[in-house]
Amino acid sequence: MDNLCGGQGTCGKCLVKVLKGRVSCRESALPQQAGRYLACRTHLLSDLEIALMPQMTGCSYNPMPENLAFKNYNYLQTPLVKKYFLELPPARAENNSSDSARVMRELKKVSGLNEPLIGLKLLSRMPQLIRKNQGEVTATVSPARTPLMLNIESGRKPQNYGLALDLGTTTLVGALLDLDTLEVLSLKGSYNPQLSYGEDVISRMIFAEKVRNRLILQKSALEGINRLIMETAREAGIEPDRITCLTVAANSAMLHFLYGLDTHYLRRDPYLPVTTSFSSLQARDLGVKISREGIIVSLPAVSSYLGGDLVAGVLACKMEQKNSLSLLMDLGTNGEVALGNREWLGAASCSAGPAFEGGGIKFGMRAAPGAIQKIKITAEKISCLTIGGGKPLGICGSGLIDLLAELLKNRLIDRSGKFRPQKAPHLFRETSDGPALRLVEKADSGLDEAILVWETDLENLIRAKAAMYAGCEFLLKKMGLDFNQVEEFFLGGGFGNYLEVENAVIIGLLPDLPRKKFVLAGNTSLKGSALCLASREAYEKTQEIASGITSFELSLESEFMNRYTAALFLPHTDLKAFPRVKADLGF
Amino acid sequence: MDNLCGGQGTCGKCLVKVLKGRVSCRESALPQQAGRYLACRTHLLSDLEIALMPQMTGCSYNPMPENLAFKNYNYLQTPLVKKYFLELPPARAENNSSDSARVMRELKKVSGLNEPLIGLKLLSRMPQLIRKNQGEVTATVSPARTPLMLNIESGRKPQNYGLALDLGTTTLVGALLDLDTLEVLSLKGSYNPQLSYGEDVISRMIFAEKVRNRLILQKSALEGINRLIMETAREAGIEPDRITCLTVAANSAMLHFLYGLDTHYLRRDPYLPVTTSFSSLQARDLGVKISREGIIVSLPAVSSYLGGDLVAGVLACKMEQKNSLSLLMDLGTNGEVALGNREWLGAASCSAGPAFEGGGIKFGMRAAPGAIQKIKITAEKISCLTIGGGKPLGICGSGLIDLLAELLKNRLIDRSGKFRPQKAPHLFRETSDGPALRLVEKADSGLDEAILVWETDLENLIRAKAAMYAGCEFLLKKMGLDFNQVEEFFLGGGFGNYLEVENAVIIGLLPDLPRKKFVLAGNTSLKGSALCLASREAYEKTQEIASGITSFELSLESEFMNRYTAALFLPHTDLKAFPRVKADLGF
Repeated sequence: MDNLCGGQGTCGKCLVKVLKGRVSCRESALPQQAGRYLACRTHLLSDLEIALMPQMTGCSYNPMPENLAFKNYNYLQTPLVKKYFLELPPARAENNSSDSARVMRELKKVSGLNEPLIGLKLLSRMPQLIRKNQGEVTATVSPARTPLMLNIESGRKPQNYGLALDLGTTTLVGALLDLDTLEVLSLKGSYNPQLSYGEDVISRMIFAEKVRNRLILQKSALEGINRLIMETAREAGIEPDRITCLTVAANSAMLHFLYGLDTHYLRRDPYLPVTTSFSSLQARDLGVKISREGIIVSLPAVSSYLGGDLVAGVLACKMEQKNSLSLLMDLGTNGEVALGNREWLGAASCSAGPAFEGGGIKFGMRAAPGAIQKIKITAEKISCLTIGGGKPLGICGSGLIDLLAELLKNRLIDRSGKFRPQKAPHLFRETSDGPALRLVEKADSGLDEAILVWETDLENLIRAKAAMYAGCEFLLKKMGLDFNQVEEFFLGGGFGNYLEVENAVIIGLLPDLPRKKFVLAGNTSLKGSALCLASREAYEKTQEIASGITSFELSLESEFMNRYTAALFLPHTDLKAFPRVKADLGF
Repeated sequence: MDNLCGGQGTCGKCLVKVLKGRVSCRESALPQQAGRYLACRTHLLSDLEIALMPQMTGCSYNPMPENLAFKNYNYLQTPLVKKYFLELPPARAENNSSDSARVMRELKKVSGLNEPLIGLKLLSRMPQLIRKNQGEVTATVSPARTPLMLNIESGRKPQNYGLALDLGTTTLVGALLDLDTLEVLSLKGSYNPQLSYGEDVISRMIFAEKVRNRLILQKSALEGINRLIMETAREAGIEPDRITCLTVAANSAMLHFLYGLDTHYLRRDPYLPVTTSFSSLQARDLGVKISREGIIVSLPAVSSYLGGDLVAGVLACKMEQKNSLSLLMDLGTNGEVALGNREWLGAASCSAGPAFEGGGIKFGMRAAPGAIQKIKITAEKISCLTIGGGKPLGICGSGLIDLLAELLKNRLIDRSGKFRPQKAPHLFRETSDGPALRLVEKADSGLDEAILVWETDLENLIRAKAAMYAGCEFLLKKMGLDFNQVEEFFLGGGFGNYLEVENAVIIGLLPDLPRKKFVLAGNTSLKGSALCLASREAYEKTQEIASGITSFELSLESEFMNRYTAALFLPHTDLKAFPRVKADLGF
């Protein structure tokens, strides 16, 4: 186990679940949960049997496969970092330009690039580098608006990889790309190690009020990123120091944490980020363990609550290129909505919470092997399908949506999400936290216990879906539009193609539109991040998108609150808005 | 005394002259001179009386005043670093751009500058900085092609100074400018501390073959620069950390030393610099002790032996703007010549040696208080005039030229520079190094000894003047021109306006042209450096100049060697080329 705080009881890295035996636990700064203890603050009173908390051990998982096919986009293939093999002609008295000038001249011939900036460290090694292999060198260049010479190596060193990252509040997902072929070599996810400091960005921002803690959060994010770098590289069978570029799509708070910026004003009215655009940085300066000469580039954000992840989503869905109206609902930890076409774009953050990523749900988990992703209830029997087919370890977003819809269809809950145990008493059980649905019995579970669902879990889910729906509705209304005018309705989120759209409509997460309008777009944040990695043109487009999006602050709008409250029923207070669901379910 | 090498006998910092008493001295890596010892390698055998060697103690001097008047140039006043006072409007919900965006917006209003790059360190302090004084901040910006935000301070902090540096092989001269008014606040010179490692660049480059020594040379240059920063700041009564920019005009070897670059290939055929252009650098990254956020900008060089100092000279003399042909003879340590007009420019380094800076002359010194700057010989009596009027300490370039010319006029030397003591025996004296001219008797000297001049001193001077003259002649010939076509003949060098042009013609340093064609241009390297500091436009012009100059390598040209040999007489082997001198002196 990592132990970041040195036994202060603040980092949460050593959280364990006590299965058998007795302990005494000193108080700690972190909230306590029954049966879970910080090992560093705990004395053993007997022999113990414990379980490590999977998300705390920081293990990675294989996320849903994503279709990152670059050919679906009309951007030029101009990776943010490129390598060029150069053959310098021998220097002669009549051609005694400087070493640097000769490199630049050949580079220009090969690439058309005009005199990249070159650092002193590289200059100081240059004479040896270019002479070692008789003038054969490989130049690594960032062909940005101000091109930058990142590295010069002797000989032919073609390998050039990049990592596209979706740095989420709950999870990190990284796609390792060959920057020559744009092939995805590996794809990995892991929980965000910052979860130890708060499940959501608000609690982490509170934690970050102390400058010391701000640095802990930064270190923690870097730790997660560096692990993902190692694991994607290992899976692809390449050396991490051959990765020359890391692109990051993240919300504003995560960006602030990553760059070590103050979030004090980010979480206070009028919600001011320090910056929304981040210039590219030497990876080593930040502590990112790719090539020493590699760079890290973050997608620009729009505002405090509309991050680079949303901008990535708009880019990935080509919303800014379309003549017709499209809407993107990104079911990340916070939940954002973007609406528009090539003429205009508007967006809002719905503060939906992390329910769709399994957050705030006791047995919730991210879409990863072992997660229940599909649920069917027939004849008072529940059947579950897990990702990978193994024994269930928890339930992920698509499973939760299925569950809520199936419970509603089978009248095992009412339209406000309250259990109706009398309908099928054998499916329920009394616990110290109230009645619970017996989703998976202990014998069938991959854990050492049954997987249960409480009413509070469902309430969290309903609040999340209500916020998302109300956010869309509000945005449309602001533009004088309604759902029927949306031509394409993109659904972004880590659950990939596993979402049952029909069920999402039944619970009222999605509006009751012709189903063909819905497009499961997958992890649009990761896709946008990968697009930028592959194409400087795409990256430059994100800057246009970010500055072009009109941002709406829902928390200030009573109109939004009203719509949110109305959406707290299943599928909605106003059944007229859901004619097909009403007919199908017979409400 | 500084002691850089820790008693290894290599740094030369502790050189002393033993006046009285006996010592025993262990061998050291440095060449030994009679009566001079490295204190660190020396045992005392009796009580001693010693003198510190002035140029080793690194004391600064007041160089000749320079006319740096910016108004004589038609460049825009756009200092390389500018400060802008900004008043940020309070943030509101309807105007919640990021802190950074609000700064950029106000900056653009005030300056027209588009989004300078901003570093992470500054961003991390930004929220506090802009709130401390209710949105009143001072932004320090480098408005380069890619503008850079160097600093943001709370409140109104208008002070903005820059130091223009002429980093010469022998001496450093710095002019401290107020970057608002462009007034010169102080002007200081000091010997280059690198003199301990070799008098000329060749011997320093040999020393620098070891990487460790390369770092010692860099450190030594920085030490000299930092001292000059402190001393100019002290004289001007300002804090060094209010200096935001340092411009450096230096030859290619000095630039390599300063930036810690390998000079191995610089001193070997085909004479390749690592680079001739240097991107601007954070001063702190190099160890230059101005403002932590300040930058250091070096003027570009042309080639191995044509440095940024020559480019500065061309700029300072406006050679690249003139329709008519002009020639610049820069009497620095190496001696360079540039020729041309607005259509074309050519230049060559003459390897003249440091005689005009007092180098290679036993009692030679830089033009500084105490230096004999004017000499007159009448009726077999020598009268000397020193800079500042005090007792003489040595003889500087203009004094040496006078001396040679006066000796020739009075027939105290022949046309090859050999003493003719029989003409005035009382003016000469026999020494262990052969006959010497008694320039100043011990009683009149500011030293504790008489100031003498040997034939070898004169030979050094004659070789230097021959190289300069032959260089000019060669360059003209290459272009199919001759001296008569030169409209303006600029003389650059640290002797300011003290050079007696007539005498320079008599010894054949200058051609026998109408005297009104000669322009004493002063320290053109410093002037060009100051121009760049005051105007980005001028700095950008240096890049055009540097890439536009055709460079000639005299050492490869037998034609040059022939002309050099012919110039080793006074004024010249070919007296027809010096008709007025011939007539005046009756040769």
